[in-house]
Amino acid sequence: MPKPSAPAIDPVANLITLIRCPSVTPAEGGALSAITAMLEPLGFTVERMMAREDGTPDVENLYARLGVDGPHLMFAGHTDVVPVGNEGDWSHPPFAAEVAGGELYGRGAVDMKGGIACFIAAVARHIEAHGAPAGSISFLITGDEEGPSINGTTKLLQWAAEKGERWDACLVGEPTNPDQLGDMIKIGRRGSLSGEIVVKGVQGHAAYPHLADNPVRGVIKLAEALMHPPFDQGTDNFQPSNLEVTTIDVGNAATNVIPARASAKFNIRFNDTWTADTLRAEIIVRLDKASADQTLRPGRAPMPYELTWADRPSHVFLTRNDALIGSLTAAIAKVTGRTPALSTTGGTSDARFIKDYCPVVEFGLVGQTMHMVDERVAVGDLETLTGIYSEFISIWFAHAGA
Amino acid sequence: MPKPSAPAIDPVANLITLIRCPSVTPAEGGALSAITAMLEPLGFTVERMMAREDGTPDVENLYARLGVDGPHLMFAGHTDVVPVGNEGDWSHPPFAAEVAGGELYGRGAVDMKGGIACFIAAVARHIEAHGAPAGSISFLITGDEEGPSINGTTKLLQWAAEKGERWDACLVGEPTNPDQLGDMIKIGRRGSLSGEIVVKGVQGHAAYPHLADNPVRGVIKLAEALMHPPFDQGTDNFQPSNLEVTTIDVGNAATNVIPARASAKFNIRFNDTWTADTLRAEIIVRLDKASADQTLRPGRAPMPYELTWADRPSHVFLTRNDALIGSLTAAIAKVTGRTPALSTTGGTSDARFIKDYCPVVEFGLVGQTMHMVDERVAVGDLETLTGIYSEFISIWFAHAGA
Repeated sequence: MPKPSAPAIDPVANLITLIRCPSVTPAEGGALSAITAMLEPLGFTVERMMAREDGTPDVENLYARLGVDGPHLMFAGHTDVVPVGNEGDWSHPPFAAEVAGGELYGRGAVDMKGGIACFIAAVARHIEAHGAPAGSISFLITGDEEGPSINGTTKLLQWAAEKGERWDACLVGEPTNPDQLGDMIKIGRRGSLSGEIVVKGVQGHAAYPHLADNPVRGVIKLAEALMHPPFDQGTDNFQPSNLEVTTIDVGNAATNVIPARASAKFNIRFNDTWTADTLRAEIIVRLDKASADQTLRPGRAPMPYELTWADRPSHVFLTRNDALIGSLTAAIAKVTGRTPALSTTGGTSDARFIKDYCPVVEFGLVGQTMHMVDERVAVGDLETLTGIYSEFISIWFAHAGA
Repeated sequence: MPKPSAPAIDPVANLITLIRCPSVTPAEGGALSAITAMLEPLGFTVERMMAREDGTPDVENLYARLGVDGPHLMFAGHTDVVPVGNEGDWSHPPFAAEVAGGELYGRGAVDMKGGIACFIAAVARHIEAHGAPAGSISFLITGDEEGPSINGTTKLLQWAAEKGERWDACLVGEPTNPDQLGDMIKIGRRGSLSGEIVVKGVQGHAAYPHLADNPVRGVIKLAEALMHPPFDQGTDNFQPSNLEVTTIDVGNAATNVIPARASAKFNIRFNDTWTADTLRAEIIVRLDKASADQTLRPGRAPMPYELTWADRPSHVFLTRNDALIGSLTAAIAKVTGRTPALSTTGGTSDARFIKDYCPVVEFGLVGQTMHMVDERVAVGDLETLTGIYSEFISIWFAHAGA
């Protein structure tokens, strides 16, 4: 065990400090100041960046760099956390950071103050053992990952890039392991595309359907066309793309009235068979065909519909970088004896923004309690992850600097 | 033309009086008092009956009888009217009963104060020409036909029957003609049955559909099973039964969330292939089969659903009574030269309650402007309908008394 007197070298102490900052999106809650206090003694230059956009809350972000030369390794993460829900349901107060039964309780314990706490400790240990790395390490920490993700990583990356910052690789500290530390590295993410269809029929009395045109028939037909057939069978690195119709709404309270309008919303998680553009085109082909289908409305003209796409689709990406993936895999194997799966499952993450700047992968804690009441992390896992991160830093710099 | 000095002998004057009573459901508006004032001078015994039920407005109804012996002919109708909508959209105030261009304007002109005005005039003419009929004529007039129909015809019939009233036939004066007086007699009505299905899934994140179970897939499948295949092809006297899904609602605002619950409501207009009970059984068979269908949810257990039936289905009925239908057809032919279609189309009417007491048919004015702004009736039609009703009274009593 390293000496606990060295600054920020204990991941448990780091995490307790961070959990006690109530940084529910978009509140900074003292978390970025706490990180500043940990990094500056290690030699980092820390900058705070406030991001603003009309109609969204202001968000504070942090960028810190140690070193001026390449190779340049970025650690990315967020200090904002999701709301605690009903605080009375927690067995330990969500911002108290209490340890019980070998586990540290608190909102953000695994998603993802824990990852940040460990990487800071890993850097501290690396410096203590080997001195500053031959290159640069930076922290890109946002306060807007759990919220709209508008005033967070995107703006922070843009701001840093405009100042001339360039990176060779990035590790995002999101919880990626389903069961045990070492299970899984995320090397890409599916894209996400959402839209809404509105079908306009002709209102009328339920006893005179021939004088009306029920848009419920249309919206069902269009929803089915969205769901079938499957978009693809998956690829080497990705699950099959999947569409969920997340809501259908008519809001007609009168039993004897055929309504005038029906709407449906959908969300697609798509793999690298598609881009957002080719997928939009496919959706339109399906809807046009279904709209003209006569099965549900014999002898009728095509049921007119309107399609609206949600803003800001998430683009699919896949990282292929041996230095990054190989170094991380080796570090995990060395510390845990496991060979991590290289996965692209799950939701979107801020990695989708970072991949436009440098190769990016994700590896952090075990995610089982994220976003739940009694979010918690095994204290032993914090030590293990710090060990993995520390090995990774050593291996990556050895590899990238070679 | 009969002498206008005889009481209630002019249908136009009768209707003007009735339209000027603002009897929007459940208000009596003076309409029943006006009818009393028309019928008592003709020799009718008039009774008013107030119907009450928890959770519904009190409603006034009227029952009037001329004569004590059989045969007994009932005329049934309602003085309540639907709301006027935006009064500024009317070219003549809806309760002013103004005549313009040969048409009498006002809410209730055709649905169905006009029918009542004409039948009163027809009875007055019959009495003037032939004396009181050899039997009895009664008026069963409700103030709750356009509303919930709970405190109207059903309760009034029950009240009268408990007093010992028995009828041999009933004519309902609803507007039944699509285009011209004499087009159509209604000799039955389809039934109406409504229900709601609720599908309970498992809420989850749109990126992890295997951990959730989207009830939208289920509700679409169940709704399709309700709509297909057709319930029947129609019968000799009825259109095919028809089901409309009148609403689907989920109310999920979060694009990345798979919802927990989806609901759909439906209404079936059904013919004499079915009873409400056999139709309910068929619906359950369809829903159970669709719930177990794996097409939309491969490898899943049956999607659980809950089915709730709306109160008070309307039962299908068909009247087969030569005396009633033949007398009315003959009267229409004599006055208009037309042979009316014997139809069962359209929505429900209070005839569905009366058919449990005696044979019932419906014949009244041309319905084109019913429930609309500028509801109106051709003054000439009032005279013609009075002539038809008058002939009908003569023929029916001659036939029924034979």
